[in-house]
Amino acid sequence: MRHDAARPTSADPAPYRALRRPAGARHVEAIDQRALPHEVVPVRIADADVAALAIRAMWIRGAPLIGAVGAYGLAMALDRDATDAGLARAHAALDATRPTAVNLRWALDRVRARVAPLAPAERADAAWLEADAIAAEDVAINHAIGEHGLALLERVAARRRGPVNVMTHCNAGALATCGWGTATAPIFLAHARGLAVHVWVSETRPRLQGANLTAWELAQRGVPHTIVVDGAGAALMRRREVDVVFVGADRVARNGDVCNKIGTYDKALGAKDNGVPFYVALPSPTLDPALANGDAIPIEARSPDEVLEVTGRDEIGRAIRVGIAPAHARALNPAFDVTPARLVTGLLTERGVATASEAGLAALFPERFA
Amino acid sequence: MRHDAARPTSADPAPYRALRRPAGARHVEAIDQRALPHEVVPVRIADADVAALAIRAMWIRGAPLIGAVGAYGLAMALDRDATDAGLARAHAALDATRPTAVNLRWALDRVRARVAPLAPAERADAAWLEADAIAAEDVAINHAIGEHGLALLERVAARRRGPVNVMTHCNAGALATCGWGTATAPIFLAHARGLAVHVWVSETRPRLQGANLTAWELAQRGVPHTIVVDGAGAALMRRREVDVVFVGADRVARNGDVCNKIGTYDKALGAKDNGVPFYVALPSPTLDPALANGDAIPIEARSPDEVLEVTGRDEIGRAIRVGIAPAHARALNPAFDVTPARLVTGLLTERGVATASEAGLAALFPERFA
Repeated sequence: MRHDAARPTSADPAPYRALRRPAGARHVEAIDQRALPHEVVPVRIADADVAALAIRAMWIRGAPLIGAVGAYGLAMALDRDATDAGLARAHAALDATRPTAVNLRWALDRVRARVAPLAPAERADAAWLEADAIAAEDVAINHAIGEHGLALLERVAARRRGPVNVMTHCNAGALATCGWGTATAPIFLAHARGLAVHVWVSETRPRLQGANLTAWELAQRGVPHTIVVDGAGAALMRRREVDVVFVGADRVARNGDVCNKIGTYDKALGAKDNGVPFYVALPSPTLDPALANGDAIPIEARSPDEVLEVTGRDEIGRAIRVGIAPAHARALNPAFDVTPARLVTGLLTERGVATASEAGLAALFPERFA
Repeated sequence: MRHDAARPTSADPAPYRALRRPAGARHVEAIDQRALPHEVVPVRIADADVAALAIRAMWIRGAPLIGAVGAYGLAMALDRDATDAGLARAHAALDATRPTAVNLRWALDRVRARVAPLAPAERADAAWLEADAIAAEDVAINHAIGEHGLALLERVAARRRGPVNVMTHCNAGALATCGWGTATAPIFLAHARGLAVHVWVSETRPRLQGANLTAWELAQRGVPHTIVVDGAGAALMRRREVDVVFVGADRVARNGDVCNKIGTYDKALGAKDNGVPFYVALPSPTLDPALANGDAIPIEARSPDEVLEVTGRDEIGRAIRVGIAPAHARALNPAFDVTPARLVTGLLTERGVATASEAGLAALFPERFA
């Protein structure tokens, strides 16, 4: 087995990889993203329980990356116990880690479907190969999304002077995938090919994936960017400082409704009110045709502490959590929201831009709507 | 002189006052709001330079409170130098502290107009009295806004069961005024009179006035509330968890456009998209009929450090600033945004609810539109 599945396209100048399986290894290497942007802490995941923990505790996050780590986790479980019972148990445990991103269930189901018909002794190797395939396909999907998105950016650039101002929210970057990211792929590609871009990074409370992760990724590649608070997005659009919005997705329903990080809906509303195109990068494993619309998507409620406390670094670089609310304050922490399809200019898939509707999606992915 | 100008209505059970002038004193007492909610740090302001610093460095904030402190600061300046030159210099210095809230200029102009015709020896006493009047009027305005807003809440309560869910943003509370606050006055009044309310507190990055100040004020009075990140506001509206939005204002233009804390526009967009009434509490000194629309309002750009760092308390209660972005990251920090009048259900003034338009405002405040 010589797979190095998560290799980004060769042009990527960034010295980090969200996930890789060393050739022949029965483990994967990732980054504990909770320490970014202050430190790059590598983690080795060699056990299904650790894979589940890494997903649940958000060492790794991002819908496509969760899917890939889940798939590898199932392979790790089968290395220990490849019986039908072991397969069912590991599938259930990994599937229970996070509810919203559909990629996780999709990847687990895919590995299970591949190995279930095999004799137990053959299952683990087949699972590792299937997980490799999922990761490799994610790289290819990222790249295709990047090319289609780049065409959109080139069209904006053709009708104005100066850099194209892209706004993004949360992190749909290389750290959320096995490759160049989804929403960031067009940006990285544009920058690599000499098209001037500037990125407005919405900090993305409560976990600050924009300020912590997206800003770091952009800095790694030298892409000009500016961090703003989440509440400044619509105001910047009103001031004509945003040409286009690119965000990722955790799950997209049959009708084109988009579930993504909390605060995405606000960006879509701001874009609509100001005539700014709003695109959602949608790798096809994030599409869930089984759901009629976004209202049926399970929204993860995370700990109130993520709202009531902020983790950062003090002046000598120590990681510290600080309380920002009165003692005993109550908070609610819905991790995702749903943006209605009517606010979405287009869904940026690996097969091109789809209109956010059942017809639009079915035209590009007929096999998913059969 | 026996003025205790900033007395809230007698029913206020809260043990704090944003501003008071002890009877006969030539100074005022305030709270250094930067230490809230962790500590109540009283500050004595006895000098115009300190008043200017208190406004600029945001020991105190909130459009009406800035106006009152500015007026008292001018009186303090005249205690030292009541010449025409001294008056002009102090007016200019105080006016330069913060650009967006029109109350500051309004209060300074009012005090200057009152004292300029007088002999220098009479100016200081007259200025103290005029500042007292401004503070006392603010208390009365707060109360009237509270009564008009309460009527709106009662109408919501009449057509549903359970508490009325109010969303607010930033702090337009007692800490922003001399009395009960503007947007909070209806809430405090409802709670005091036994109408069940629950408040969604939008944390309000970057300075977290929602989590730090509004949540603290609500806790002081025992009003049920829940803190959410700014990006969750529209999502909660879409989930039908918000009955009405009440926010404050820093300046309202002739046409009803509203300038308020950054992120207010997002709340208005969320409200519009979901049919949630969106009211702006507007004490008349915050109205600026000289400006045709909101686009002409000067928007204060504050330090990027407010975005790149968060101030809170560590586990043993020490105030600590933590960095939340990559080293050398760039940020933009517009402190306010403009909500177009078309998104505003009504302007909640001391004379009743005005439609957000020139006609609506002129009907209630004809003398300002003469």
